[in-house]
Amino acid sequence: MTYSAPLREMQFLLDHVVGMSDLTALDRYSEATPDLVAAILGEAGKFTAEVLAPLRRTGDLQGSKLVNGTVETPAGFKEAYAQYVDGGWNALSADPEYGGQGMPFILSCAFMEMITSANMAFGLCPMLGQGAVEALLAHAVPDLQDRYLPNLVSGKWTGTMNLTEPQAGSDVGALRTKADRQADGSYLIQGQKIFITWGDHDVAENVLHLVLARLPDAPQGTKGISLFLVPKFMINDDGSLGARNDLRVVSLEHKLGIHASPTCVMAFGDNGGCVGYLIGEENKGMSCMFTMMNHARLNVGLQGIGCAELAYQQAYAYARDRVQGVPMGTEPADRAPIFEHADVRRMLLTMKASTEAARAIAFLNANAMDLAHNATDKEDRWWNQGLADLLTPLSKGYGTDIGVENASLAVQVHGGMGFIEETGVAQTLRDARITPIYEGTNGIQALDLVGRKLAQDGGEHWQALFRRIEGFLNSLPTDGDLGAIRTDLGDALVALRQATAWIMAERAQNMRAVAAGATPYLRLFSMTVGGYLLAVGAKAAFAELKTPDADREFLQSRVVLARFFAEQLLPPASALMGPITRGDGLLFALSPDQLAV
Amino acid sequence: MTYSAPLREMQFLLDHVVGMSDLTALDRYSEATPDLVAAILGEAGKFTAEVLAPLRRTGDLQGSKLVNGTVETPAGFKEAYAQYVDGGWNALSADPEYGGQGMPFILSCAFMEMITSANMAFGLCPMLGQGAVEALLAHAVPDLQDRYLPNLVSGKWTGTMNLTEPQAGSDVGALRTKADRQADGSYLIQGQKIFITWGDHDVAENVLHLVLARLPDAPQGTKGISLFLVPKFMINDDGSLGARNDLRVVSLEHKLGIHASPTCVMAFGDNGGCVGYLIGEENKGMSCMFTMMNHARLNVGLQGIGCAELAYQQAYAYARDRVQGVPMGTEPADRAPIFEHADVRRMLLTMKASTEAARAIAFLNANAMDLAHNATDKEDRWWNQGLADLLTPLSKGYGTDIGVENASLAVQVHGGMGFIEETGVAQTLRDARITPIYEGTNGIQALDLVGRKLAQDGGEHWQALFRRIEGFLNSLPTDGDLGAIRTDLGDALVALRQATAWIMAERAQNMRAVAAGATPYLRLFSMTVGGYLLAVGAKAAFAELKTPDADREFLQSRVVLARFFAEQLLPPASALMGPITRGDGLLFALSPDQLAV
Repeated sequence: MTYSAPLREMQFLLDHVVGMSDLTALDRYSEATPDLVAAILGEAGKFTAEVLAPLRRTGDLQGSKLVNGTVETPAGFKEAYAQYVDGGWNALSADPEYGGQGMPFILSCAFMEMITSANMAFGLCPMLGQGAVEALLAHAVPDLQDRYLPNLVSGKWTGTMNLTEPQAGSDVGALRTKADRQADGSYLIQGQKIFITWGDHDVAENVLHLVLARLPDAPQGTKGISLFLVPKFMINDDGSLGARNDLRVVSLEHKLGIHASPTCVMAFGDNGGCVGYLIGEENKGMSCMFTMMNHARLNVGLQGIGCAELAYQQAYAYARDRVQGVPMGTEPADRAPIFEHADVRRMLLTMKASTEAARAIAFLNANAMDLAHNATDKEDRWWNQGLADLLTPLSKGYGTDIGVENASLAVQVHGGMGFIEETGVAQTLRDARITPIYEGTNGIQALDLVGRKLAQDGGEHWQALFRRIEGFLNSLPTDGDLGAIRTDLGDALVALRQATAWIMAERAQNMRAVAAGATPYLRLFSMTVGGYLLAVGAKAAFAELKTPDADREFLQSRVVLARFFAEQLLPPASALMGPITRGDGLLFALSPDQLAV
Repeated sequence: MTYSAPLREMQFLLDHVVGMSDLTALDRYSEATPDLVAAILGEAGKFTAEVLAPLRRTGDLQGSKLVNGTVETPAGFKEAYAQYVDGGWNALSADPEYGGQGMPFILSCAFMEMITSANMAFGLCPMLGQGAVEALLAHAVPDLQDRYLPNLVSGKWTGTMNLTEPQAGSDVGALRTKADRQADGSYLIQGQKIFITWGDHDVAENVLHLVLARLPDAPQGTKGISLFLVPKFMINDDGSLGARNDLRVVSLEHKLGIHASPTCVMAFGDNGGCVGYLIGEENKGMSCMFTMMNHARLNVGLQGIGCAELAYQQAYAYARDRVQGVPMGTEPADRAPIFEHADVRRMLLTMKASTEAARAIAFLNANAMDLAHNATDKEDRWWNQGLADLLTPLSKGYGTDIGVENASLAVQVHGGMGFIEETGVAQTLRDARITPIYEGTNGIQALDLVGRKLAQDGGEHWQALFRRIEGFLNSLPTDGDLGAIRTDLGDALVALRQATAWIMAERAQNMRAVAAGATPYLRLFSMTVGGYLLAVGAKAAFAELKTPDADREFLQSRVVLARFFAEQLLPPASALMGPITRGDGLLFALSPDQLAV
């Protein structure tokens, strides 16, 4: 299986759907010319396809292993990581002050999707490092920044996030790891953490752990959590590696997928000598985490989309190649590739349309995050921050849901061969399955949407987005492909408005009733926005078709996929309006014992 | 994880939904008294939970292995299989003439579901053997029957199905394995088969392979296929094992799941000495296969349901145990098991309601199959055969779809722990994933429904079923729980009628357009029938509630689950009417190249 980055479609999204030109018009991104952006995407596609993709299956087979207390990664990972760092990929959108290349964030998002398609387990390492960069940049004192950021930005050192403990998963506030103040201003850390992605490895010389812990006099719950930087090796004043810190890998998890990504149980301070440095203020660790959270959630959404894209490419390649049977409705002699079977086409178009819809949401989300920080106009920043906040649970929830759904469809397209590990598509399903879980389960994303995001700024952001969709719908013709899209997308918007009105009214009465419909609401919301963005692309494609030298074949596909999404995938989503608004009565009508076998 | 067979619900289905009393009223089943049926179900639950379930995870970890040309099964499988045979389980519903216990087929269906929940990989061995029994019983000459059936019925020997070759999967007619007539009436078989479930093992002393092959003068395609019995060990006239036949295991597949079930590549006649015996007539192999197909498809549907049931039990146990976070809409101090979170309840009820709906379809299907053979009245047999034929793609397609969907939901309920193999729920997803593929992919089930079953007997069977649902709907009150069900189930029936009318009209014009909507149509059809059967149960529960000593808690759950299914799960299914009836235009609007990346 050869992975091929969807460059043409990504470029189209940037140019015609997301409107990246607003971003690149800013002084800050004056260097990000269209030519440079295209060149970076092209090189990213090449690097992921040529360097990372070949290690996907071998990485899965070998897995990372704990040998004498340190983690050994699969063959080739060390060399690939070196190429990754040497190519400057880790620093793509990082701050130039610390050696970054200062490109728009959306480019590293596109790259994150590509890395995931090519080799998700590999990509988790830099993904976690990116979060650590953000935390240090936003909250650490200058001395810590100067000491740690340059090597973290370049990728010479990697970063981790240490949140989870056995009793504290989604409920981070329940964590028990301790931090004690020392005379020199540092802290001693003691405790055990689980699910630590790339908690140790042999691809880089140092690992910087970001650890959530609790001071002796800290308030209970999330208000008493502080964030610490805990390096594997201490750093001397000249920047060289110093003594080994008192932390170790206890064990690695045996997981369904991403076998090459070492998921560690970490022990800090077994011998009472684990040194950490405070990031931000004491007891403000949760707000430091929130800094990273939106980026991290978007990145996980992009992982889902990367899995969906890979799944599509695997299914497409197999369907074109595999000759089997006579398609219903054709002549007995017409033995054909399964690509010609209507039902296989349905699966392929479902995968492609949903992947593109999710990608459009995620890219718009990334662009809005960037503008929220960098737009010159204050109102612009406010609007984009609200949009980014609103879209984040969609990117994460819908992106990872379709990651799993499409990986499962891709297995189905392969028939019996899909169940055989050598084919590689079973791995896509195994790898993808974690994405709806980590970085806030999709249930939590749905609660974030109905509980927090809908209420933000008095609901201004979703109202504005709905108005924008409505205005767009009114601009569409009433016949032809765009007319068909107008009908089904219009139905979805009506359903979304009704469901939202119900939620906004119910919020004041019964939050549990709101929570009861949160997951189908997230689905309806995501698919309406996704369908809208595909339709924006379709309308733009119609306009582009009139230009000379237009890539007609590609532009036509924009129209067909947008219509397929609207006509085939949106109606069941619109029908979720009823289920969303039925409240929590039935869900709690039965006692736990009544739900037993 | 302890598996516990859903005895109470199965019994309720038999008594109040399927109407098994029609069956047990027959002379043939005069021994199948209510007490005996209940006792058999109870013992089956005990055997599967106590003997098979403990080997589920170890079987997955060890897998079956090819050692010096023979397959070694995981520790404990041999002993468990011996207990299975000694307990008479293999012969539960087999013909007493060959040592069977002659119980109704529906009981072995219930047992098949239980085996799958407890240990799917184990259960595949008897499942394949059951198919071989049917083929021999229906088509073999008496001498073959006498020689092979008793030990196949008891389980002393096991059976396999050898259909697939690399180029011939769903398209069986493309197979190339050869059969040459010999002077003594036997045949020499030569060729290679793939995906042979339990093709070799160490749990029983002989393996009887049913092999599809082609005579030198056979017509092309499916009309030139013959079925042969090819034993691993020849049988002497005194019934003892004779010489080793010329067949061998080439290799085992590395699969996503069911690791304990050896999936073999088989070579027949490498040395030109592989002896086989014709079953049925030359070139009539496909019709012999069709004899088994309905039973086999129902059995695979039951596997899906068994996976769904196990997934539910795993998720339920975890959700009651795992304390995490404060449910939205409750006080901050109310840290609670995740069972109390509305979104987790939604997942659990979705799993339970869909599992019960699928089980009701499959049980009705099994009962109809039995009555189709054994009812005294000819009209009755005809009606039940038609019903069984119509329901088979539903049982297989919907049963296995929800098997995978619910296994994935169960992983989600577990959060991060769901991704860890030790938890056991990841295995449920891995195992379940084959069920929508084998024994006719679910795409093929959908084509079978729209292409064959809708047209059978001029459409009399689906029309009668729709009328039956309509009559039932009219019998429901218009308010309360049953009134709510009436509304949503009524909408589903309207959608199903409209979609069916469109398909019946379109069949004459454009079969590819019909095929384009086949999969969502199968979903709509299945969920309407499933919702109807749950509603039948709910109505019966209301009646039962009036009797003294009624199990009120359980009966109430019948009502809540039926209403949840109707109110929460049916609306998106009903909304498939539009997508089903849009034809094949969009699916074929793009060329293969346009669908490339």
